[in-house]
Amino acid sequence: MATEFGLAEIEAASRRIAGRVIRTPVLSSPMLDELAKCRVFVKAESLQRTGSFKFRGALNKILAMDPEVRRRGIITYSAGNHGHAVAAAAREVGCPAVIVLPVTAPTIKVDNCRWWGAETVFYDPTSQDREEVARAIAEPRGLELVPPFDDFEVMAGQGTAGLEFAEELVRLDACPDALLVCCSGGGLASGAATAMKARFPDLACHVVEPAGLDKMARSLACGFPQPKPSSPTTIMDGIAGPIAGARPLAVLRGLGATGLTVTDAEAQEAMAVAFRFLKLVLEPGGAAALAAAITKGSSLAGKTVAVIGTGGNVDEDVFADAVAGDARSSARSSGDGS
Amino acid sequence: MATEFGLAEIEAASRRIAGRVIRTPVLSSPMLDELAKCRVFVKAESLQRTGSFKFRGALNKILAMDPEVRRRGIITYSAGNHGHAVAAAAREVGCPAVIVLPVTAPTIKVDNCRWWGAETVFYDPTSQDREEVARAIAEPRGLELVPPFDDFEVMAGQGTAGLEFAEELVRLDACPDALLVCCSGGGLASGAATAMKARFPDLACHVVEPAGLDKMARSLACGFPQPKPSSPTTIMDGIAGPIAGARPLAVLRGLGATGLTVTDAEAQEAMAVAFRFLKLVLEPGGAAALAAAITKGSSLAGKTVAVIGTGGNVDEDVFADAVAGDARSSARSSGDGS
Repeated sequence: MATEFGLAEIEAASRRIAGRVIRTPVLSSPMLDELAKCRVFVKAESLQRTGSFKFRGALNKILAMDPEVRRRGIITYSAGNHGHAVAAAAREVGCPAVIVLPVTAPTIKVDNCRWWGAETVFYDPTSQDREEVARAIAEPRGLELVPPFDDFEVMAGQGTAGLEFAEELVRLDACPDALLVCCSGGGLASGAATAMKARFPDLACHVVEPAGLDKMARSLACGFPQPKPSSPTTIMDGIAGPIAGARPLAVLRGLGATGLTVTDAEAQEAMAVAFRFLKLVLEPGGAAALAAAITKGSSLAGKTVAVIGTGGNVDEDVFADAVAGDARSSARSSGDGS
Repeated sequence: MATEFGLAEIEAASRRIAGRVIRTPVLSSPMLDELAKCRVFVKAESLQRTGSFKFRGALNKILAMDPEVRRRGIITYSAGNHGHAVAAAAREVGCPAVIVLPVTAPTIKVDNCRWWGAETVFYDPTSQDREEVARAIAEPRGLELVPPFDDFEVMAGQGTAGLEFAEELVRLDACPDALLVCCSGGGLASGAATAMKARFPDLACHVVEPAGLDKMARSLACGFPQPKPSSPTTIMDGIAGPIAGARPLAVLRGLGATGLTVTDAEAQEAMAVAFRFLKLVLEPGGAAALAAAITKGSSLAGKTVAVIGTGGNVDEDVFADAVAGDARSSARSSGDGS
């Protein structure tokens, strides 16, 4: 198990998962640049296997395990992109997987995990702690936990997206001034920022979070992992996890990262922009960094901005609302225009 | 100007446009494979600059021109993906461009052409022939026509999508049994089939057209370019052009290509599948080949199928209808389930 974290660990992860992940494209659009008032490059991780960057970290974690450990199997707790990615990565590698899900998980998410052959176990989120439930199942069977973000192997796997992004920007002869990355626990943000900053030392790294739920920005300010406040709610469910990760926080602090926030309406606007100019499906949380590039562009005027579009797992009606702009204009007319 | 057409011309085009086009990803999904009952790889040309493969052909045509000709400028007639691509390619190269548009063209399409700095000229489709209008403008100014498909340089440019597709399939250790490509005039179909068949000699090449509007299939059957019948109508506007191209027809005949058709409802289903499993925005005509893979999959059971997703320029409401499945289920309930 990795006990250090840096470019070498990300490069090792890249070799380990090579050929099993999609080298997602870096997209741009002069029309988008005009709108954002800066030069925007988008790494389209929504096109990654299982529809988000999460597959990279899950696969790297599983492949880095001792073969005997892997043979016994893995376990995780997540109803979202991480759970889906772990189930698919386990299938890819051929090891047993258990996904611990809340009884409230939507049927489609449960079905996704089962489709890949994973065993699903349910807990009651009102009375049970998901980590305790997972531990109780894992211990007698010797299952290894695949944590969603607070783990060097997972961070290194997610960091391979940043490594590819940096390589492609070099090929395009573009030198980014800023990296904008959607952030919840910080696994991707810490990994991608490490890889990108190694190639572009002057890069400013910004984590992008839902307005009012900027737990990583608050953690960066005080130095300790902060939990998510109980309110407000957000449609950016993919980046509304319970707490910032300790290891990602330490890495992001070391890189001098700072936070930006976006509103639900701004995320929806970014989904519509990605649909119109890039032909990409982004989920609300996966569009947060693009939303920040669009709304904060004036402070980055003339700069080159690297954005990671992190995921595309979104329900039809939520996507249709966003691209049609109905929900957005109603949010605006209710005063949400900050 | 090229007077022959084959792999060498496509490879030359690939070198000419290198670094100026996006190397679009090849995507796949085990869930899609299960649905289609065959192994499907999708080359996502909707992610190409201007949202369709058309940028490749336009750029190659312009770059292959004599510099003196290019300096005078170019002209084309198209309100759709070709016009948009020509305007953007002219801007990329820095030459003047005139786009001849019907007075009935939607404002957004006119604005797109103007955004890239192209001059727009209008004609009345009820009383004027667009080619004659274009000629009358082009001759005194010495403008060079960029034809939409019936041109070896345009075909070679479009063929670079097939060249990249073949290279990526080799890298993935996949040997396709069939190529399915959306087809109207046949520029992409002829170019991509030439490139793919050079690498995979046993490949079966299928052009995919709207049901009842299969002008290329009819042209292949009789050996002469057939016009589009005046009915039925289709939502697949991108592949409902007026006539099959003579040069593409000759090439496709030489490759032994055959035709497949899909209904509007099947194209909408494929748009929903691309949204759900691949996170791709496809326009109706751009989803036709994927629709054929899904509906004709049983005759390709266990086979490996290469599909080109050709474009993603679709209005919000058309896309929302398709992914929500409303229009589709009403089409089905009205008996359209063939």
